[in-house]
Formats: sequence, structure tokens, C-alpha cells
Amino acid sequence: MKAEIISIGTELLLGETVDTNSNFLASQLPEIGIDLLWITQIGDNTERIISIFKKAINRSDIIFVTGGLGPTEDDITRESLAKTLKEKLSIDSYQEKKLRNFFVFRNRTFPIKNIKQAAIIPSAKFLNNPVGTAPGWWVKTKNTQIFLMPGPPSEMQKMWNEQIKKRLLKGSTSILVKKIIKISTLGESTINEMVEPLLNGKNPSVGIYVKKDGVSLRIAAKAKTKKEALKLIKPVEKKIKTILSGYIWGEDSQNFADVIQMMMIKEKFSLGIIESVTGGSIANEITNINGSSKYFHGSLVAYHQDTKIFAGVKKNIIKKQGTISKITTEALAKNALKIFNSSLGLGITGIAGNKITEEQQPGTIFIAITNGQKTMCKEYHLPSGRNQIKNRAVFLSFTLIREFINEIKKK
Amino acid sequence: MKAEIISIGTELLLGETVDTNSNFLASQLPEIGIDLLWITQIGDNTERIISIFKKAINRSDIIFVTGGLGPTEDDITRESLAKTLKEKLSIDSYQEKKLRNFFVFRNRTFPIKNIKQAAIIPSAKFLNNPVGTAPGWWVKTKNTQIFLMPGPPSEMQKMWNEQIKKRLLKGSTSILVKKIIKISTLGESTINEMVEPLLNGKNPSVGIYVKKDGVSLRIAAKAKTKKEALKLIKPVEKKIKTILSGYIWGEDSQNFADVIQMMMIKEKFSLGIIESVTGGSIANEITNINGSSKYFHGSLVAYHQDTKIFAGVKKNIIKKQGTISKITTEALAKNALKIFNSSLGLGITGIAGNKITEEQQPGTIFIAITNGQKTMCKEYHLPSGRNQIKNRAVFLSFTLIREFINEIKKK
Repeated sequence: MKAEIISIGTELLLGETVDTNSNFLASQLPEIGIDLLWITQIGDNTERIISIFKKAINRSDIIFVTGGLGPTEDDITRESLAKTLKEKLSIDSYQEKKLRNFFVFRNRTFPIKNIKQAAIIPSAKFLNNPVGTAPGWWVKTKNTQIFLMPGPPSEMQKMWNEQIKKRLLKGSTSILVKKIIKISTLGESTINEMVEPLLNGKNPSVGIYVKKDGVSLRIAAKAKTKKEALKLIKPVEKKIKTILSGYIWGEDSQNFADVIQMMMIKEKFSLGIIESVTGGSIANEITNINGSSKYFHGSLVAYHQDTKIFAGVKKNIIKKQGTISKITTEALAKNALKIFNSSLGLGITGIAGNKITEEQQPGTIFIAITNGQKTMCKEYHLPSGRNQIKNRAVFLSFTLIREFINEIKKK
Repeated sequence: MKAEIISIGTELLLGETVDTNSNFLASQLPEIGIDLLWITQIGDNTERIISIFKKAINRSDIIFVTGGLGPTEDDITRESLAKTLKEKLSIDSYQEKKLRNFFVFRNRTFPIKNIKQAAIIPSAKFLNNPVGTAPGWWVKTKNTQIFLMPGPPSEMQKMWNEQIKKRLLKGSTSILVKKIIKISTLGESTINEMVEPLLNGKNPSVGIYVKKDGVSLRIAAKAKTKKEALKLIKPVEKKIKTILSGYIWGEDSQNFADVIQMMMIKEKFSLGIIESVTGGSIANEITNINGSSKYFHGSLVAYHQDTKIFAGVKKNIIKKQGTISKITTEALAKNALKIFNSSLGLGITGIAGNKITEEQQPGTIFIAITNGQKTMCKEYHLPSGRNQIKNRAVFLSFTLIREFINEIKKK
């Protein structure tokens, strides 16, 4: 199955928007056994859109199109496809009703422009868009299937996950299955040395790559069924897990906040945080996960020194030790316990800006965790860059929480 | 000048790497007056690369190619272009020497594979790569210029900035200047209706697009010089600013947290927050900006009902009104003032999850702001999706802060 992606929008060609949609779709296709051969970004120009549509219908079995389904004049994907296929657009009354209801529900008047989002051609069926006004299209021509999806990534991904992926999985004959193993605190080259003998395999293949959440190992196998592919993956996975035992924090699409949430709920812990340097980003990551309110009681973002005093750290401790110190950070962790009435407390201080503060270098971070009896505190020195420091500090906080829970479970 | 970008590498089609190179180049071209009409991502496949090269030479004046210049077997950009142009590759001895020196300088033996990075065709000149082993090519055919650049973004950008951009600026006769106007709380179609008469202009052109930070208007003008372009933009900009007066929160590359920070510091306000539904993301956005500690005192992320009581809301208010209500949210805003000893207090409650809570629908949000005397509170109903609700709630909080400051400044 040969496939291509066409992303439509002048903003892509002006460099105003990164085409994350095609990257998302590209990452989804291997596991369905679909070979992606071309990605094209093109502007809001009827002639050029029709030209690439014709070319694509000629060379590909499946075409994924994103963007240009909005209500404005420069949203011309529907019109261009209709012209390419020499079909007529008409307004679907059921879809129009749905669209009008979308506005009624939100107490907004229906802008008459939006009516074109209820337009369709005979060879297309609507794909439902539960989070926006632009429905998708699923078009079947003689030799090609075409999926039109809205440009906003959240709408596109929801449509893909809930409607398109399932349809395509039904028709798939060979698939690629991937197992991702996510590793904390070890560097890329160290991991490379540790697993080197496994890196030359073809099926499964093993690769190492670095992402925002640390280093990952990818084991990938091709087979007719998922079961067969997993059979190829299993022995390699087992070897890697033995070699890297203790350093693995997650697998596949798990993110670290997911893993922490599962550990917390399983061990019946609750968590309160006092964070300064991370400025709310630990709480933000935690609350991105559904169900986090089951264990997360809250965080006090103490960005001003007075707030740290409010947070219960004694004035003379801050005066003597400074706000960025082991003793202050441990005090914050302990106070987090009290303030949030939780079984675990986390404190974090440091410098994300680029100025030396209290004689400490930018990038200096202290993280402490406590359950009331036992307290762990670590000091880190991170490379500069405000957002990089914040991100890394969140990652290291999760690493410490995981280590602490494993430590107290042992006893 | 019609241009296109071709990004080469199978990793792009597998979704393992985002093609940031084409986005970078796309953002650079308008100011040189080059019209980018196509971007294509393609894998390491000779036949398909030659096919797109032929097509590109046929339709474009300038072609930018990135990737496939490495030393391994699957790096085939040079070979494919030689075949397309029916020219012969030969090893350039001066380039070979430079390449060997690169390894000598780093105390590494020269891998014989790398010799192919010294290969060239008669119609090409080398472009120096000071940070890697892959030199670029500058090819001039009868009607087309072709630039080959290495795939690693740092190498590509250095080559672009130091060698290619200058060459192109010399030949440039017209440039494109853009003015971006960022709008809060109005929907895309409403804005469309308001500025409709301006949307048909050619030079400057006006476009509407939606990003994470709301709807933006782009005014773009082509002229010989920046000054002339700005002259074309000014009257349209003025009209748009009059029509949308009160709804514009920022311009060009500004982000909302930047704008809030400038307002806060200018008016000598300080800010304390109690946030529940946003789970720390307001504080996170605020603290992403350098210098935020000048006005931001902190945030209490009150994710658990008990924390709301700790945050100073009376038990019987929560019991009678619920946590997601105007009265509770206003109480939180007022308590934020006290807790953080700030001149402005913001409170926000709502439901980001997908369950009806306290008889309120998911997506229900209350935001309140106060300076102690005056309090404003707004209620919103957002479409579902945890992260979308969080993001939108942050945006609406910034909108409300801005509105509140403008309101109290009037008096």
C-alpha cells in the first residue's frame, strides 16, 4: 500500500507553522503496514492543489490530506478535490443541522460562511469532528482512498485515532511493530556501548534515539501479524531489560507523569509540591494526565522569596542557607506534606534564569522528597537555557520520585 | 522567483524526525522576495529522488535540497542529482584534503567511506561546511539554481546564514514584509466578517489563521525595499487596528505571557494566582519568560478540595456553591491577593476531565480577577479535551488580565 500526505496551507510555506500533522501521521503508518513515499506541503492555491491531487491519485493507493477545511475563502481543499474529481459540491442538510447545533450549544450565532463546512461530493462520506466545526471526508475512487482531515492537530489526531486508523487496520496485510524502552539518567553513548551487540540485527532492528523525555531504545519487527512480530521482539527486549535493569522508567507511549501516577495510585500515596525554579511545570505535567486528581493534592509555586516564607520555611533558614540550598529545599518538601496534607512532599529550588543568584551558577537545582520519616535530596548542575532547565528539572523530579518510591518499598 | 524545498531522508517518512529544516528555510525566504510554492519530503530512493528533481527543475527557479549528503550507502543526494543532470561525479582533490584534515584535526582515522563527500559534478561548486564533514553544492543550470545542504539543522543553518542567504540577497529585486496582528476572544469567522473588505487586496495581502494563541491576521506586502513595503502595510494595518480595536493583544513574534509581563511591570502590578483546572499551566507559561519574577509572586495549584479550603475559601461556601462556581472563584482570586501579598489576584476553577462534576458539564470554566476593590468574573464553556481546555483556559486568563488592567487604567 503506497501512501502520501498532502498538507495544505500558505502558512506552512511562509514558515509560520510547522507541519506537525504529517510527522504525526508518518509515525502512525508503519504499524498499519502502509508505506509512506511522499509528503508535500502546498499553499492555498487551487491550481497547484489540483495538480498535486491528480499526481497523487495517479501514484498512491491512499492519500492523507490535512488543512484547508475551515470556513474562510482561503480554505479551498473541498472545492479543489471536487474539481479534481469533476464532482459537484452540495450542502448536506443533516451536516448543516449538526453544524448549527455546534454554535447553538456554545451560545454563538451561526456565521453563514460556515455553511460550506457542510458541503460534500457524491463519492465522499463525512468523518465526524467532535471537537471542531470542520468534518472530514472519506473519498473512495476507483483505485484510491482519500482522507481529508482538519488542520488543527487536536482535531486531526482525534479523527485519526477514533475513525481512520481503525478502518485502515482492517485492510492491512503486513505490519511493523515497535517496542520502545525509555531510560532515565544514562547518556546516549553509554547506552550505545552497553547494548552494542544488539544493534546489528535486521528483524528486529534496534535503534537508539534522544527525545525530550530522555534516551529511548526502539526494537522494531516486521511480520504478518502483531503476534508474530512480538515473538521476534520478545527475546531482544528481554536482553535489553536485563542489561539496563534499574534504568528503565517506561515503555512505548507512556510518559513519565503516567508512570508516576500509576506508582502513586498503586502504592496509595498522595503528593504535594512546593516548586520554585520549575514555576508550575511539574504540576502542569502531572495534571495533563486524566485521573491525576486521585493522588495529586496540589503545588505551591513559590516564585517570590516572601512566598517561600509563607510556605513555612523559617526566615533565619532562608537568611543563613539561601533559598537555593539543600536545607531550604528539604524544608520545602516537608512543608509540602503539611500544606497539602499528602503522604509524599516534593520541594524544588534552583536557577532557570541566566544570572548568578546567591553565589550559585545558573542551572543549579536542588530537589528533595520526603514521606515525613525519610528524606532524599539531590543537587544537579544543568546546561543553560530557561526552558531546557525547566524541562530537565521536571524529568529529574519524576526520576527522584520513582527512585524514592522504589527505595521505601524495599524496606 | 519561484522556489521549492526538497527534504531527503527515510526517517522523515517514518515520522522519527520532524523536518524543521524546511520550516526554517520557509521562514527565511519571504524577506528575500522568494516565493516558496512547494515543499516535498522524500525517502532515500534514487528513482523517486530523480523524479522530484526533474519535476522541480522544470517548475522552479531555485531549489533547496537538504539531507542525504552523509558518508553512508543511503546518502544518495549527490548521485541522484548527477544522474538527473546527466553529469559525471569525480573526486575533488582539494576537497579530499580538507576532509582528511577534518579527521586528522580530531585525532580520528579517515573512514574511506567519507571520500564520497569530496565528490562533485562540473556544474557545481562546493559550499563550505565548517562544522561537519558534508560540504554543500551550489549548482547552476540553464534556468535553475540548486543548493544542496546537509541535513543536521545546525550545519544547514550555518551554511544558509553564512553563504547562501548573502548570495540570494544580492540577486533579490523585491522583498516581502509581514505584519502579524494577534487577536483575543473573537472567532475566525467573526473576524473574517469584520475585515472582509480588506481580504481581497493583493499587495498588501491580508490572511487569517488560527494558532495555539488565538486567531492572527497577517498583512504581507511586496516591494523593493523594507521601507516601501511598510508604506504599503501601514494604511491597512491602521484600518484593521481600528476595526478590531480592543481585541488585539499582541503583534509579530510576541507571545501572550510577554505582553502580560510588559503590562504588569509598566503598571507596577504584582500577581498571585490560585488555579485548579489549569493545574499549574498559567504559572508555567508566565515563568517561561525571562524576568517574570519581577511581577509574578506565585501560584497555588489547588487540585484537591481540601487545598481549596487551605486556600482560604470557607467550607460552607464550597458546600453551598460548589468548587466550580462564580462565588468560589471570586473568593480564590481574593485569597490569592492575601496569600501572595500581590496587587492583583487571579482565581480559576473548572472541569478539564471528561466527567460531569457538581452538575457542571466538562469544559465549564470560571475565571476571576481582583485588585481588592474591583472584581471581574467570567464563565466559559469550552469544547472537550483535557489539554485543549487547559491551553484555552490559560489564553482566556491572559485575556481577562489584560481586559482588567485596561479597565482599571481607564478610571
